[in-house]
Amino acid sequence: MEPKWLVNGRDTGVPPSDRGLAYSDGLFETMAMDGGEIRWLDAHLERLHSGCSRLGIPCPDAPLLLAELGQLAPRTGRCVAKFIVTRGSSARGYRPPDDPTPTRIVGVTAWPNYPSERYRDGISLGVCHTPIGESPALAGLKHLGRLEQVLAQAELKSTRHVEGLMSTDAGHVIGGTMSNLFCVEDGVLRTPRLDRAGVRGIMRAIVMQRAAAAGVPVEETDLTITRVTGADEVFVTNAVFGIWPVRKIGAKKLFVGELCRRLMLEIGLGESN
Amino acid sequence: MEPKWLVNGRDTGVPPSDRGLAYSDGLFETMAMDGGEIRWLDAHLERLHSGCSRLGIPCPDAPLLLAELGQLAPRTGRCVAKFIVTRGSSARGYRPPDDPTPTRIVGVTAWPNYPSERYRDGISLGVCHTPIGESPALAGLKHLGRLEQVLAQAELKSTRHVEGLMSTDAGHVIGGTMSNLFCVEDGVLRTPRLDRAGVRGIMRAIVMQRAAAAGVPVEETDLTITRVTGADEVFVTNAVFGIWPVRKIGAKKLFVGELCRRLMLEIGLGESN
Repeated sequence: MEPKWLVNGRDTGVPPSDRGLAYSDGLFETMAMDGGEIRWLDAHLERLHSGCSRLGIPCPDAPLLLAELGQLAPRTGRCVAKFIVTRGSSARGYRPPDDPTPTRIVGVTAWPNYPSERYRDGISLGVCHTPIGESPALAGLKHLGRLEQVLAQAELKSTRHVEGLMSTDAGHVIGGTMSNLFCVEDGVLRTPRLDRAGVRGIMRAIVMQRAAAAGVPVEETDLTITRVTGADEVFVTNAVFGIWPVRKIGAKKLFVGELCRRLMLEIGLGESN
Repeated sequence: MEPKWLVNGRDTGVPPSDRGLAYSDGLFETMAMDGGEIRWLDAHLERLHSGCSRLGIPCPDAPLLLAELGQLAPRTGRCVAKFIVTRGSSARGYRPPDDPTPTRIVGVTAWPNYPSERYRDGISLGVCHTPIGESPALAGLKHLGRLEQVLAQAELKSTRHVEGLMSTDAGHVIGGTMSNLFCVEDGVLRTPRLDRAGVRGIMRAIVMQRAAAAGVPVEETDLTITRVTGADEVFVTNAVFGIWPVRKIGAKKLFVGELCRRLMLEIGLGESN
C-alpha cells in the first residue's frame, strides 16, 4: 500500500511558507485504523483539539478530517492514519498571524506488520545518549518538533533494540523515542511525569485508566534508568503498536509481567494485534 | 514583492511525507540580500554545512543553492533569502533513512522596511513568559523546531515591544525570540552561552569577532534578566536586521551605548541599513 495524502482536501504538496514546515508550528496524530475505523478515535480527536487550543490554532472540524480520511483509507484491513494540523501559511517571521487559516493534512500508510514476538516475548530497549530537552511550554503536546527523537532513533540503527529510552539531562526517564513507558514496582504502576518533556500518549492514558479501574495504584512520577531497570515489569505503549513488554534494557534481562499481560488482554492487544 | 520559492529546483509544494514538515528534521538559513548578493554568505553556508553534518543530513552543494536563488532573487534592491534543507521524504517513523535524499528549498521574500528609529533610538524589549527549553542535543542549531519562539512572539502581539527576551526555566537569558543578545558591563561584552538552548547567530559571531579584534573583552556566560537589565548597554542582533540597540527592557530605560554604535558603524549597519 502506497502512502496517500490530502492537503486541505487536495492531492497536492504543502507550500514552503507553511508554518508547519517553516517553524514546526503544528500538531499531529498517528492512529491505528482497522476496517475503516480509527481505534481510540475520540481520544485522538480530543488530544488534537486540546493541543490546537493550547497553541491557538483553530482546529479543523472532525467530520471534515474523517471524511477526507474516508477518501483514502481502505475499507478492510489495517493501516496507519495520520492527521497533521499546522497554523497554515503566513508572512515570514515567528509571529503567528491574528487570523490563521490552518492547514489540515490527512494521510494513510501501510500497517507495519510487527513481529508477534514483540507482543509475546517483549522487546529489547536501548538507552539513548541523545538527551530529551526540557520544554515546559511544549511538554505533553504531540507537536511537529521531533528532531531529538529522530537523533535518538538514529542511535538505535546499528543495534537490535526495537525502541530506545530517552531521559533528560538531569536523568529523568521520559519514555521511548516513539512510546510512553510504564513500570511496575511492588504492584504499583508508575509512568514518568510529562510536565517538562514528552508526549501525553493516547495509549498511555488508556493504560492508566484501565489499570486504575482494575484497582491497580497508578502514579506519575520521576523515574531514573536505574529504577526502571530494577522494576518488576516494564512495558512501552503507543496508539499504533499498543503495548510491548520489555524483556531487556541494555544488558539487564526482565520478564514479561502479569499486569502487562492483563492490560494487553483487556485492551484487546497482543500477538494478534 | 510576492514570496517566491523553489523546492528541489521546481515551483512546487513539499510532500506531506517530507521529514522537515513531519518531524522538523531539517535546518534553515535566513539571509539579507542586497543587489543580488547575500551578506555574510560564507558564514551562512558554513553554518548550514556544519548543521547538516551534525544532524547527518547530506548538505546540498552551495553552487546549486545559489543558482536556484539566482533564479528568484531581484538583481537590485534588498530582499530576504531563505534556504531550508530537510532530510527529505522517508517511510513513516522517526528513524532517519540510511541514504536520505535531502529536500532543498530556496525562497525570497520582501525586505522588511524596518523603521530607522530602531537603529537610531533603539527598541523596546519585552520579557516573554514562554520559557525556552533546554535541549543540549539541538542547542546552537538553526533547526526547524521553533514553536517556542512562535509562542513567545504571540505574547508580544498586544504590546509595543519589537522583540522579546527568552529565558530558560532556570532563569538563564538565552536571547530574543529571533535574535541573539549582547550586553556591555564595565567595558566587557557579554552574551549568553548557547550550549543548552538558542541559535548560534551569524551576526552574533560577527559581533563577537569584531569586538575582540577591537580589543574589547568578549565573554559567553550565564546571564539573568536582572543582570541584563542592569547592564551599561544592551543590544540584539540577527543577520537580517543587523544590530538593534535596546532602549527599554520592560519598564527599565537604557541608553544606546557607545560600543553598540561603534559596532554598527564598523559592520556597516545603522539607520541606512
